[in-house]
Amino acid sequence: MKLIEGGVCAVPGVKAYGIKEGKQGLAIIAGKGNAAGVFTQNKIRAAPVIVTSRRLPGVMNAIVAYSGSANAFTGKKGIEDAEKMAFLVAGALGVDPESVGVASTGIIGRPVNMDWIEYHVKEAINGLTSEPSGSEAAARAIMTTDTALKQVVVEVDGVHIGGIAKGSGMIEPNMATMLAFIYTDAKLSSESLYKCLKTAVDNSFNMLVVDGDTSTNDMVLLTATGKKRIDESKFQEGLNRVCAELAKMIARDGEGATKFIEVRIKGARSEEDARKAAKAVVRSPLVKTAVYGADPNWGRIIAAIGRSGTDVEEERITLALSDSHKTVTLVKEGNIVEGALAQAKALMAKDVIVISADLGLGKHEATAWGCDLTYDYIRINAKYIM
Amino acid sequence: MKLIEGGVCAVPGVKAYGIKEGKQGLAIIAGKGNAAGVFTQNKIRAAPVIVTSRRLPGVMNAIVAYSGSANAFTGKKGIEDAEKMAFLVAGALGVDPESVGVASTGIIGRPVNMDWIEYHVKEAINGLTSEPSGSEAAARAIMTTDTALKQVVVEVDGVHIGGIAKGSGMIEPNMATMLAFIYTDAKLSSESLYKCLKTAVDNSFNMLVVDGDTSTNDMVLLTATGKKRIDESKFQEGLNRVCAELAKMIARDGEGATKFIEVRIKGARSEEDARKAAKAVVRSPLVKTAVYGADPNWGRIIAAIGRSGTDVEEERITLALSDSHKTVTLVKEGNIVEGALAQAKALMAKDVIVISADLGLGKHEATAWGCDLTYDYIRINAKYIM
Repeated sequence: MKLIEGGVCAVPGVKAYGIKEGKQGLAIIAGKGNAAGVFTQNKIRAAPVIVTSRRLPGVMNAIVAYSGSANAFTGKKGIEDAEKMAFLVAGALGVDPESVGVASTGIIGRPVNMDWIEYHVKEAINGLTSEPSGSEAAARAIMTTDTALKQVVVEVDGVHIGGIAKGSGMIEPNMATMLAFIYTDAKLSSESLYKCLKTAVDNSFNMLVVDGDTSTNDMVLLTATGKKRIDESKFQEGLNRVCAELAKMIARDGEGATKFIEVRIKGARSEEDARKAAKAVVRSPLVKTAVYGADPNWGRIIAAIGRSGTDVEEERITLALSDSHKTVTLVKEGNIVEGALAQAKALMAKDVIVISADLGLGKHEATAWGCDLTYDYIRINAKYIM
Repeated sequence: MKLIEGGVCAVPGVKAYGIKEGKQGLAIIAGKGNAAGVFTQNKIRAAPVIVTSRRLPGVMNAIVAYSGSANAFTGKKGIEDAEKMAFLVAGALGVDPESVGVASTGIIGRPVNMDWIEYHVKEAINGLTSEPSGSEAAARAIMTTDTALKQVVVEVDGVHIGGIAKGSGMIEPNMATMLAFIYTDAKLSSESLYKCLKTAVDNSFNMLVVDGDTSTNDMVLLTATGKKRIDESKFQEGLNRVCAELAKMIARDGEGATKFIEVRIKGARSEEDARKAAKAVVRSPLVKTAVYGADPNWGRIIAAIGRSGTDVEEERITLALSDSHKTVTLVKEGNIVEGALAQAKALMAKDVIVISADLGLGKHEATAWGCDLTYDYIRINAKYIM
């Protein structure tokens, strides 16, 4: 398995394009095949989530995504608008409207600007290309508070799996205002795709916390153009990697983030326990502000693990901090390591912080990703008027 | 029932005193009677929580509380130190050490300064007084990042219920670095006290969110000197009020807070649903930053309710914002109210923001309290070196 340059357009048979104009954007991706999706668990579901989730698993010919409003809490008109977006793209491409996935992101309670969309659909369709620039344009078109383009491609056993994503705030358990569109040329049924996607998402986007909010609009869509056979377990490995890389890009680009945090929990009694502990640490505002302040405040980490609901015994915990090169153990089987704090303090100045805890109780493990909590998060969200 | 001036010393038979010296503080409260306590649900429990929870329900003669370190994650030595604090106070008062409650607050993983405590116990004991100044000194001695003194007294059917509290960060579901010591002259068994305390705490401190972290050190202790008979339901009313007032004081004094937020959910299918929804809104960083930015961003409120796990139907939600005087309805049974946003914007400049949502599904309700998320929260917690 290797990571290669590019986004969805690195996958044979896939074309993409996007338009960004002020605070609005439109991305279209064309690529035919079996498809599956995973959607937000928020009980208020945006119109495009309702429309697209009805169509999957199944066959998809294209995706159309709008940034500028969430099209959430928009009632019947919202559903009509989402269906119209699919209809416009389907008409231009000459495919069944039911085979077009729809996504959107932006402010809740505001309808999409259908005039703007209608005006730009043709331009986007005309721009569709299999060149790398197409994937980039699509990824750029769906950015809102994102500051970095997010795309990745993996090659495994001759098969390509490539994705683009957006997301930087409202990010927590079980996805967030995050959209990810993944394509592959693998030949797999839509049921297999769903199973693989669910597994990959559970270990990547669902282990990502920026701020603990969960959006009404999340979705990850996976389409397989079916040109190449591959062993399902190999495909799973590649897809896991693609989702993990995209999730880490989102964590790095967390609203206002200056540091990337990885939390590795091992020695848990169950996988559920390991996940709960990892997410509680990466979600803790006190851990996040300590990381921002470069303070190796391991007590806040222990408190977060303790309140996560995971089984834990004080005298078995081993805790270390790392910048991913150098590692300093602060607590060893419940005992505070003398003199380690000064070394840890130096590490904390770095921009990648890895927090590792071994609970010493079992053999289960989990990893979660996030970012620090900074003045800029406040600025961005207190003054976010689109 | 009426609210009167003062703290624990307004309760006949109760004396208190406290000493604050730099970043350390010691509070002692003396008052004999049946007692009960409610403690943190964090699985990492500080030594004083372990020691005090073993002793209750039962009879308590005094409480000793130290601010300066949490005495959490301090192993056997921590337990010995907590027991020694009780022992010193018991010796000076001539009571059984087992009848002294112990509390502490501060940084995790750091032992208490026993020399400092030993040196100051006598001074604190000598200072014990039933004057209002005693309660104030005790309340002040346990402050850490708190900026305001927290005490309240209620008189109901001739019975007094008075309490002091500390807490401003690491505050979330199921208590936080929050200590509250409540006294009453009511005559009730320790079992009745426990039952009443549990109910009052569930509807007050457990509905309080500052930052979503839960401390290792939380406790609420209630002692009844037993001088006056009272109907248990009347007592419950008074105790509910005392706990709610203290919880609101903590929310108002949330780290870096500039605004107090009250979230009222009604029309939920179950009480559990109402609580989940209220807490999800008051916990949401996006709602908290919107309140800080005076932005009536009701979409974030709806999204928080949606992800709380509560039953919700878009077309039944009614949502209003208020400054506790004037109320503006933004969403009525799923429909956005035209022109309401500008009025709501004006309200949001106030320093008390009441968010009310009627889910329109049932008859259950709940109220939660919190505060906005500001630059100062970041400053306080990124640079909190005691």
